Amino acid sequence: MSSPLVFEPIAIIHSGYKEKFGIPRQPGLAVSMTATVELLPPYNSADAVRGLEQCSHIWLLFIFSACVDKGWSPLVRPPRLGGNEKLGVFASRSPFRPNPIGLSPVKLEGIRCEGSQVFLDVSGADLLDQTPIVDIKPYLPYSDSLPQAEYDIAPQIDMLKLPVQFSATAQAALERHSNRLKQPLQQQIEEVLRCDPRPAYHKQKAQQRTYGIRLHDLNIRWEVNAQAILVSQIDINPDDDLKA
Amino acid sequence: MSSPLVFEPIAIIHSGYKEKFGIPRQPGLAVSMTATVELLPPYNSADAVRGLEQCSHIWLLFIFSACVDKGWSPLVRPPRLGGNEKLGVFASRSPFRPNPIGLSPVKLEGIRCEGSQVFLDVSGADLLDQTPIVDIKPYLPYSDSLPQAEYDIAPQIDMLKLPVQFSATAQAALERHSNRLKQPLQQQIEEVLRCDPRPAYHKQKAQQRTYGIRLHDLNIRWEVNAQAILVSQIDINPDDDLKA
Repeated sequence: MSSPLVFEPIAIIHSGYKEKFGIPRQPGLAVSMTATVELLPPYNSADAVRGLEQCSHIWLLFIFSACVDKGWSPLVRPPRLGGNEKLGVFASRSPFRPNPIGLSPVKLEGIRCEGSQVFLDVSGADLLDQTPIVDIKPYLPYSDSLPQAEYDIAPQIDMLKLPVQFSATAQAALERHSNRLKQPLQQQIEEVLRCDPRPAYHKQKAQQRTYGIRLHDLNIRWEVNAQAILVSQIDINPDDDLKA
Repeated sequence: MSSPLVFEPIAIIHSGYKEKFGIPRQPGLAVSMTATVELLPPYNSADAVRGLEQCSHIWLLFIFSACVDKGWSPLVRPPRLGGNEKLGVFASRSPFRPNPIGLSPVKLEGIRCEGSQVFLDVSGADLLDQTPIVDIKPYLPYSDSLPQAEYDIAPQIDMLKLPVQFSATAQAALERHSNRLKQPLQQQIEEVLRCDPRPAYHKQKAQQRTYGIRLHDLNIRWEVNAQAILVSQIDINPDDDLKA
């Protein structure tokens, strides 16, 4: 097989994650964030997904499109190792890989065929909005689920156990935007922030600093102190506002 | 991202499966068949796999190279459904897909760095010899293992529960070739045949028929009757003989 391997997107994802910062580093951690997989022509036929409704979970094989053309190197510094320890790229799930393919198991919430459009509603996806998808496969528990597998480097996720608190203005904005977007915004924010998207060196220094994450068309400002994760402000993102 | 997605093999697998017929239809079913993943330049550095020895299992993302250029169709007839029922290609693990990428979790038995060569020894792989690999990822049990997942179409594998018997000549050949190849050939043959590679319509008719599968450089002839799976002959495959 000497011909080049050329792939094309079969679908695109529509997700509330509008930038890399803040996306949980593995799928399944923020379950209240739903996303929609839109099949693209000529793959958007009801036939192509026949029987898929019997799956509780599916694999999304996608392209780390934000990392394409940024190259790869044999060693990476995974955030979960504090950004200091180097690991081989094939021993990591880093997006900067020779072939920038990502692999995520997600929960299949529903399938909608509307005219010539086919949409898969999924939850737990850790994919940036507009990510191109190159394959969809059923999750086969008997072969894919290996609870006996071990990887000492990543034994579990360290979630922040702090309560998430909202300032009075953030609380008011939360209710307003939840209604407008028809999204369980409070739960989505709490899940994303408990995954603690701060860089490892910020966590270690415990500096008081305000961060922003973008969810849907919102910019959410927050900080962490010893007692709580405090959401101070929720505003329409200026970029999204201009586009609207 | 409008540029085409061009991937290149980062590795190639050396496996005892020399033809599609007979390969277990999912990984992990024939655990005594080991295979070797040979990293290709410029990806063959010890750095690129640093830390991977801490993984018990890895994902191989590979190209269904025997199916490339054969096209895809929205509906497939999975062998496990008897070859009659049609299923959407995205609801199946059929190799005939828009982007012919395969996904297999395998057990990592060892890593060998010999000079500028890097080899990964794996077991349980369901990959044809010489299959190109486009990515290697650590299996992360906390996100990849979903024992609660359900897919009614594929609840479990129907293994043949019949004993595997060897004719006198097959038994003699078995011992000779096991020693020569330094492979647990008897176990490999039994595992592969218990997965019952016969086409579904042959199983239903229960016809007495001799089949051949190729493992390593051997052609193994076998048949199934009501009492047993009988291996009648084990010979060097003529093609392999000519090459030797």
